[in-house]
Amino acid sequence: MGVLTKRIAVLPGDGIGPEVCTEAIKVLEAVSERFGHQFELDVQLMGACAIDATGDPLPESTLQACFEADAILLGAIGDPKYDNNPAAKVRPEQGLLRLRKSLGLFANIRPVTAYDVLLEHSPLKADRIQGADMLIYRELTGGIYFGEKGRTADGAYDHCTYTREEIVRIAHLAFQSATTRRNKLTLVDKANVLETSRLWREVVQQIAPEYPSVAVDYLFVDNAAMQMILNPKQFDVILTENMFGDIISDEASVIAGSLGLLPSASVGETAAMFEPIHGSYPQAKGKGIANPIATILSVAMMLEHFGMQEEADLVKEAVDYTLDKNVLTPELRADHPFTTEQVGAFIANYVQEGG
Amino acid sequence: MGVLTKRIAVLPGDGIGPEVCTEAIKVLEAVSERFGHQFELDVQLMGACAIDATGDPLPESTLQACFEADAILLGAIGDPKYDNNPAAKVRPEQGLLRLRKSLGLFANIRPVTAYDVLLEHSPLKADRIQGADMLIYRELTGGIYFGEKGRTADGAYDHCTYTREEIVRIAHLAFQSATTRRNKLTLVDKANVLETSRLWREVVQQIAPEYPSVAVDYLFVDNAAMQMILNPKQFDVILTENMFGDIISDEASVIAGSLGLLPSASVGETAAMFEPIHGSYPQAKGKGIANPIATILSVAMMLEHFGMQEEADLVKEAVDYTLDKNVLTPELRADHPFTTEQVGAFIANYVQEGG
Ligand SMILES: [Mg+2]
Ligand SMILES: [Mg+2]
Repeated sequence: MGVLTKRIAVLPGDGIGPEVCTEAIKVLEAVSERFGHQFELDVQLMGACAIDATGDPLPESTLQACFEADAILLGAIGDPKYDNNPAAKVRPEQGLLRLRKSLGLFANIRPVTAYDVLLEHSPLKADRIQGADMLIYRELTGGIYFGEKGRTADGAYDHCTYTREEIVRIAHLAFQSATTRRNKLTLVDKANVLETSRLWREVVQQIAPEYPSVAVDYLFVDNAAMQMILNPKQFDVILTENMFGDIISDEASVIAGSLGLLPSASVGETAAMFEPIHGSYPQAKGKGIANPIATILSVAMMLEHFGMQEEADLVKEAVDYTLDKNVLTPELRADHPFTTEQVGAFIANYVQEGG
Repeated sequence: MGVLTKRIAVLPGDGIGPEVCTEAIKVLEAVSERFGHQFELDVQLMGACAIDATGDPLPESTLQACFEADAILLGAIGDPKYDNNPAAKVRPEQGLLRLRKSLGLFANIRPVTAYDVLLEHSPLKADRIQGADMLIYRELTGGIYFGEKGRTADGAYDHCTYTREEIVRIAHLAFQSATTRRNKLTLVDKANVLETSRLWREVVQQIAPEYPSVAVDYLFVDNAAMQMILNPKQFDVILTENMFGDIISDEASVIAGSLGLLPSASVGETAAMFEPIHGSYPQAKGKGIANPIATILSVAMMLEHFGMQEEADLVKEAVDYTLDKNVLTPELRADHPFTTEQVGAFIANYVQEGG
């Protein structure tokens, strides 16, 4: 692959978001130095910081920058002064929901990897979690979270709907991904009860023959919630609808031992956004204790999205080396921890010089 | 308490259901021998076996027997030949859903207890799970599982509805139970997104002042799925709607180390059904390896429901003794395991002779 120019909208956001983005950008710059690519960064406000500055959690200039970018890097959003104020009319999260909707980001993709260095931090026994390595595809713009909702005289309702096309497009992404991994896809649904789940299962069964190498299995969501704890190693690619994905992917995130290492991507037909799964963690802001690795691994996912596989692999290798060398922030290393900035610099240096 | 006569509808169901029911009935007979009560058993078909025999997972004669009984003992239902066929028009689960609805069994109650003998079998590290003791109240006849569902030209839909009254009646049961335990109640919902969840939260906030000793907190379901693994000891009574309860209670069930020990009750205004939480486990059918203890502890919950507290306590004592003596089926004791029948006989013998 030749040298490329990519435009990246950077939304550092709130709390520790700016700190972890700073380290992720160091790594991007190291990739640029080493491989010659040009990354044009367009830093914009979103979240509580955008409300403070403009009154709007997603200002028009931010949305415009995201439309014009090849990819978006997001830190984290949210601030207790809005979250804990029930009278607040405008909330940081509204910006994120509106951005996902505007960009048509229909698939949320989360890898969950059980790094050996985290085994002691996992709530699961080591033999259950060691070696687990899964990738969860969660539908992000349909289902009950986006359905019609309201009140009746004596109650309330929420409607869950899915169209065939909403399922087809994310199912293909998940199948394609499975072919590059261990060729296993698990659909999580509740097809014994829900009509939308039966549609999901039908669509997956119809698409499956196009991916003959992929073994497909089906788990009811309640069983999946059990299997995630009992035997997480059984999973390769998981595909599921919006609400089930919310629950199952959050459950999966804690078994690995630290939220601080888990990246994510949200993709649509024409846009892609990359962000750590952790929140804005306002208590840690400015203390240099935030773990930048989840955001750095989000950059690796972005590089893969750009087709820069060698570059992405090098970033992941740098992270593995950093974990091996015990260059860790305090939640993973209580004695003699490294700072956010030191961890970022160590990884960026490996990318630029080592490997 | 004097000698009572109770009519019990027994629905052995599918897979290992008949085997575990046989052992639970042995224990009931031992209680009868020792205390002089008369238990009139009316054994009926439900589930896949009922479809095979009559075409209907809940034949009229079964429903009638349940209406006439003082309580219902259920084994397990479900068969892969129906579950894995999206074209199947009649499903075993429909029988169970219809039975719950017909009897008005609106509350499913599941204790989850971390028995010390099971700590090594729990997927969680011992320090996370030891001492966990919770009771989950899951609404059982409302929500998306019972809402209108169907197909459109290009998709499918499921409607979730709740009335205020459906929430009020189970919320009172959960609050009352909390006052007999550790006075903590956690509502699991998704009130940041769903209107039905906002109604649940409103109702619980309105009822809470009637139970001033009970501390109430609120968890979003995705966070609850994480907290159940990270710190299950924080929970006392959990209250939640039908689908969230399905997922969270199944997740909770595996952290204790074995599904084979966990009973449940489903209660309504005038009817009550008792069943192990495990499924029909068709692979194990007829092998003598199914653990009958969950069904036997379900009988203990039934005896409590009949007001037979001494009898219920004796059955639980017999189970504790059995665990202490390591009289266990193979999933808990790989070397020299006992059979389903041996475990049942050991417990029944203790109830009749020992104690
Ligand atoms: Mg979530
Ligand atoms: Mg279930």
